[in-house]
Amino acid sequence: MKKGSLRQGSLRFVETEYFTFAHPPYVFELEGGGRLGPVTIAYETYGTLNRDKSNGILILHALTGDAHAAGYHEGDKDPGWWDSMIGPGKAFDTNRYFVICSNVIGGCKGSTGPSSINPETGRPYGLNFPIITIKDMVNAQARLIDYLGIERLLCVAGGSMGGMQVLQWVVSYPERVASAIPIATTATHSPQQIAFNEVGRQAIMADPNWNNGDYYGGPLPVKGLSVARMVGHITYMSDESMNEKFGRRVKNEKKPFKFSPEFEVEGYLQYRGDNFIKRFDPNSYLYITKAIDYFDLSNGVGLHNLLKGIKTKFLIIAFKSDWLYPPYQSQEIARACKRAGVEAIYCELNSNYGHDAFLVEVDEQAHLITHFLNKVAESIKR
Amino acid sequence: MKKGSLRQGSLRFVETEYFTFAHPPYVFELEGGGRLGPVTIAYETYGTLNRDKSNGILILHALTGDAHAAGYHEGDKDPGWWDSMIGPGKAFDTNRYFVICSNVIGGCKGSTGPSSINPETGRPYGLNFPIITIKDMVNAQARLIDYLGIERLLCVAGGSMGGMQVLQWVVSYPERVASAIPIATTATHSPQQIAFNEVGRQAIMADPNWNNGDYYGGPLPVKGLSVARMVGHITYMSDESMNEKFGRRVKNEKKPFKFSPEFEVEGYLQYRGDNFIKRFDPNSYLYITKAIDYFDLSNGVGLHNLLKGIKTKFLIIAFKSDWLYPPYQSQEIARACKRAGVEAIYCELNSNYGHDAFLVEVDEQAHLITHFLNKVAESIKR
Repeated sequence: MKKGSLRQGSLRFVETEYFTFAHPPYVFELEGGGRLGPVTIAYETYGTLNRDKSNGILILHALTGDAHAAGYHEGDKDPGWWDSMIGPGKAFDTNRYFVICSNVIGGCKGSTGPSSINPETGRPYGLNFPIITIKDMVNAQARLIDYLGIERLLCVAGGSMGGMQVLQWVVSYPERVASAIPIATTATHSPQQIAFNEVGRQAIMADPNWNNGDYYGGPLPVKGLSVARMVGHITYMSDESMNEKFGRRVKNEKKPFKFSPEFEVEGYLQYRGDNFIKRFDPNSYLYITKAIDYFDLSNGVGLHNLLKGIKTKFLIIAFKSDWLYPPYQSQEIARACKRAGVEAIYCELNSNYGHDAFLVEVDEQAHLITHFLNKVAESIKR
Repeated sequence: MKKGSLRQGSLRFVETEYFTFAHPPYVFELEGGGRLGPVTIAYETYGTLNRDKSNGILILHALTGDAHAAGYHEGDKDPGWWDSMIGPGKAFDTNRYFVICSNVIGGCKGSTGPSSINPETGRPYGLNFPIITIKDMVNAQARLIDYLGIERLLCVAGGSMGGMQVLQWVVSYPERVASAIPIATTATHSPQQIAFNEVGRQAIMADPNWNNGDYYGGPLPVKGLSVARMVGHITYMSDESMNEKFGRRVKNEKKPFKFSPEFEVEGYLQYRGDNFIKRFDPNSYLYITKAIDYFDLSNGVGLHNLLKGIKTKFLIIAFKSDWLYPPYQSQEIARACKRAGVEAIYCELNSNYGHDAFLVEVDEQAHLITHFLNKVAESIKR
């Protein structure tokens, strides 16, 4: 990679680090009753922790994200997944804040997950990996934040599944979170959202190469994972953004009348689906989507009851064209804050990008977040 | 079946009939360049054709529908798929109208399709079946209407893919259609709609039992078809109707933390998916979804230009919560009618049932259709 091709204003070379806890004889207890240990978390940090350790911001990623949120890994052409938002002078300004991004447990990007070696067998866990929840992900992150010596985070922020972790952080560790930015997310996964995830899981499990989760070292369930990813991609885009991006254009002019992908939208989905196996473990897809589906923060008691007395300040962001996590779900969070007397700003942005907007709609989001963090940082100084 | 269990006001025992044309040496020429012959169409009729043959109404079905739209087949527990709308005293009143419902070519319910015997090989067509389009379906239906001796239909009506056939009928045979009722449909299949169909096709083709379409007599691609059907079902329901029907209820009280379906919505989708193989041919699913994806009635020339000078009267119905064929697509049809000077009524109904509304939202639809048909029938008498 030529140095000139680095995006201006981006962090230069960053590296993923690893933190391991729950070494034997200790274990990490999981919400579903399972136990895990040792547990490794992959994470990255950007910027510098200040002397009173009050400038830490934890960034939480979505379903297929990882710890590499910003800057460039040596040799890479593309920066981290939220590089547009994290860096010197950006929304999460690394000149001012110490930004941490941690990969979730259950994942396949360096944190302990189903593709990790099970110390009891010396082979990958596969389906012997215990069921995990969003709460488990957050509890593991809390151990990382302990390790980094941070008592109280200035902010936790993230979109989609990252937003669920944000909400869980506030409810599990209210005194450790000064502010929270849940984006394009929900406090309760709906049946439609469960249904889309279930289709993805069924597609993976229908692939004979999946082999009941025991495929490591053998042929991979490429086709099943590809179908799962295709379903996902449809739900991340809006009807309108698909119209703009693809229309009804076909890959070659002559109407070919055949079953191989011919419309551009088909080719795009297949390309994205087929390539997904290179960067994601099918079993991690099963475990993480299941954790998402189990997410029901209030679980019948009323979200406002859980938030009562909490001092965390909220900035809640939703996108008009997001039909996977529609604005009404963010409005429910905002209403619960209001009812609980928790300080909250709700912003609905007018983007056409659907759910993907939290990744690509930079300007307005950055503006909102910059000002919100300024105020939070000021109020802490006082 | 006890006679008492028949739905009141439904037609008693009806039977499917078969019409075959394009016997050798004749062939049926297809839009994509293929040829087919002989071609059989399965159809049913309800009511009586009047002396001047002016009371014929053609009902057109959706993706997985068939010719059995109303009444009971002997021994069946359930009536035809639109029994709520077709029968004595109902919207399509069989005391007044002669109602015809024809299964599409490419299907698997008695009409010639990929599971039919290819006369050239003596084996099922499989992927040797030619690509078909909505226009081909309509051209075949026109042969059936010829055979039934009907010059001009009082009405053509149908929802979803049935609505596409309605629109194609009007454009291909304007002088043969006095009125048209396209419901929950579009004149141009959008990239999002193509994408959902493509996921279903990829799921079927990913199943090794699909065997390049040559599975007849062997193990069937049950899992692939099941995933395709699950995707379909999600798109037929609304977020709201899923919330009402399933919520986050689990099949047993104790949170089981496992991968087999546990939320009610998962169980429902799997049940519907697994059972689909009993009534639908996977290759027909490929061919018919492809016909739908090719559907672009105006194909760049502007729908209003195609409709100019047409005397057909339109009743266009859409449903607010239908996100698969959203109201804006029906509004586009209504606008094109207006611009072309074609008489059209557009009605957007306030149902929560999503796309399924055209099948289950009976009262308001029936009311609209009854009055519309009354007016059309009157205007013809004059």
